[in-house]
Amino acid sequence: MGEIIQFDSEAPAAPEEDATLDQLQALVAEDLREVNRVILEYMNSDVALIPTLAGHIIASGGKRLRPILTLAVARMCGYSGTRHISLAACVEFIHTATLLHDDVVDESDLRRGAATANAVWGNKPSVLVGDFLFSRAFQLSVADGSLKVLAILANTSAVLAEGEVMQLLTSNDTETSEAAYLDVITAKTATLFAAACQLGGVVAERPANEEEGLRNYGINLGVAYQLVDDALDYSAREKVLGKSIGDDFREGKITLPVVLSFRRGGEEERKFWRRTMEEGEQGQEDFERAVMLIERHGAIRDTLERARHYGAVARDALAIFPVCDEKKCLLDVIDFCIRRAH
Amino acid sequence: MGEIIQFDSEAPAAPEEDATLDQLQALVAEDLREVNRVILEYMNSDVALIPTLAGHIIASGGKRLRPILTLAVARMCGYSGTRHISLAACVEFIHTATLLHDDVVDESDLRRGAATANAVWGNKPSVLVGDFLFSRAFQLSVADGSLKVLAILANTSAVLAEGEVMQLLTSNDTETSEAAYLDVITAKTATLFAAACQLGGVVAERPANEEEGLRNYGINLGVAYQLVDDALDYSAREKVLGKSIGDDFREGKITLPVVLSFRRGGEEERKFWRRTMEEGEQGQEDFERAVMLIERHGAIRDTLERARHYGAVARDALAIFPVCDEKKCLLDVIDFCIRRAH
Repeated sequence: MGEIIQFDSEAPAAPEEDATLDQLQALVAEDLREVNRVILEYMNSDVALIPTLAGHIIASGGKRLRPILTLAVARMCGYSGTRHISLAACVEFIHTATLLHDDVVDESDLRRGAATANAVWGNKPSVLVGDFLFSRAFQLSVADGSLKVLAILANTSAVLAEGEVMQLLTSNDTETSEAAYLDVITAKTATLFAAACQLGGVVAERPANEEEGLRNYGINLGVAYQLVDDALDYSAREKVLGKSIGDDFREGKITLPVVLSFRRGGEEERKFWRRTMEEGEQGQEDFERAVMLIERHGAIRDTLERARHYGAVARDALAIFPVCDEKKCLLDVIDFCIRRAH
Repeated sequence: MGEIIQFDSEAPAAPEEDATLDQLQALVAEDLREVNRVILEYMNSDVALIPTLAGHIIASGGKRLRPILTLAVARMCGYSGTRHISLAACVEFIHTATLLHDDVVDESDLRRGAATANAVWGNKPSVLVGDFLFSRAFQLSVADGSLKVLAILANTSAVLAEGEVMQLLTSNDTETSEAAYLDVITAKTATLFAAACQLGGVVAERPANEEEGLRNYGINLGVAYQLVDDALDYSAREKVLGKSIGDDFREGKITLPVVLSFRRGGEEERKFWRRTMEEGEQGQEDFERAVMLIERHGAIRDTLERARHYGAVARDALAIFPVCDEKKCLLDVIDFCIRRAH
């Protein structure tokens, strides 16, 4: 067998960030250990570079937010079996495969405060190990044996890939509308949140209306999460964000703070955005100027306001579920996703 | 809906190459038209770049060898349903996704005589559209609804990705053994040939020994195919090969002609291989010298001899099947794979 990578799933993140996630992590701690065991088992390969590279990104302090959602939802739905374990691992593999390909596409050097796999090993292994992890997700979902689960994951993967291509197409396009931006983040981020939550309900064999509620919780939580992420890229301290600030600006990735600022600004400002984000001509002080313009137009404030809106919708999507510890924590996750901006 | 790309599946290739494949293509022509219909349907997306880019590589004169194998095997096994159509399309999607990622990894500019997708659109969309096509394969196999089929395809995908990583690791390593080389081509090429053939037997619900025979036919055919491909990269005219000759040499990809020449040559020659393929220092005349050394050691002749061995094993793997037109054509495919070297 290939090399075994050990990692500690409970590596503490910045305390001000994970205040509300801690409780949920504690609630599903036992299941989460099992998920990590499955992840370790399935990321293994006789080709030693695969577990080495996969372990690097999987162990690099990710919050395991998506698998935790699957675990917590399954428990909230009264599920007492073990299928949610491998499906949570499956969701994490799809997420990790996407991250590997994302970092290649974005040419990122830093993720969660550590060097990206492509920065360490180059683009080629990142592309191929991403493919391997995606195949492992496919194998895990086949092992689960439910065609319903398989259909959810296959459709999610296709929408996710479409979202990534859409994002590439809106890159460097300052004319991108808020609606187009929303389509992108719904496809590339929120769809996997939705699947993670829905799967928890599917294994518990909950009725269609509850499954729909879980999907809607996931979609709206995912959109809120990405909105805050995109706001942080112009406003966070690097320590909190765990990745380089200003990445989106440097890559010409058009996110809501820019969409709003571009549209609210005058011709002079639009020229600035076109030069820096469309033509990619960026000087020393341009990021500071971008932050200043975004601040002037209240674009961070309003991006977070939009996030709160989706958070509120996510909250109501869970209203049909009876009160329990898991539900309370799932509601806290919404606050966590939004509050990490502060 | 997104853009529709039309393509003619029967675009003629070099006549001396496809002499024996023509008959098989004719035999499954009707089914193959259906496969192309499914491919067109499933490669579509609202994100117009996806069918544009996917259409570019899918339409670029590929022989459709793998889906044709699925179709012919299913018919040979007496199957009269339609499941083989979507599974053949599924196999072609996996193959195409791999090609897209391969070309990114190899930094190739030319495939089948046309510009590669990464050369036209850049690496980023090639990575992401590859992911999309892989997801479509996943969706197609879920739509088929058989867990057995799903397991075959999921396992194949994982082995394929492992093979690609293994190939990357042997790149530039002149010490690569013939055994290690064989492991690479078995994983990255022959496994998909094996799955393509096995699936034809699975839909026909043939007994285990026949399924095994079909897998063995596919594996050995695939190894023979890749051996010849690797020989052609040092010996073909570009018109026949449909891709740039000397690609493997320039990329430092260690294939059997090099493995044999390196081991058979003296220290002076090994220095040459190390300089050109390990250190990547290649001058104007180096490819000619490589071809000359390979010729001197009979490495092309013996690579083709190895291919004939695997071809013979593939032939015997079909011996348990009764004589019919399809079987005759499947045996001809072996000759086609080997003879295209001439």
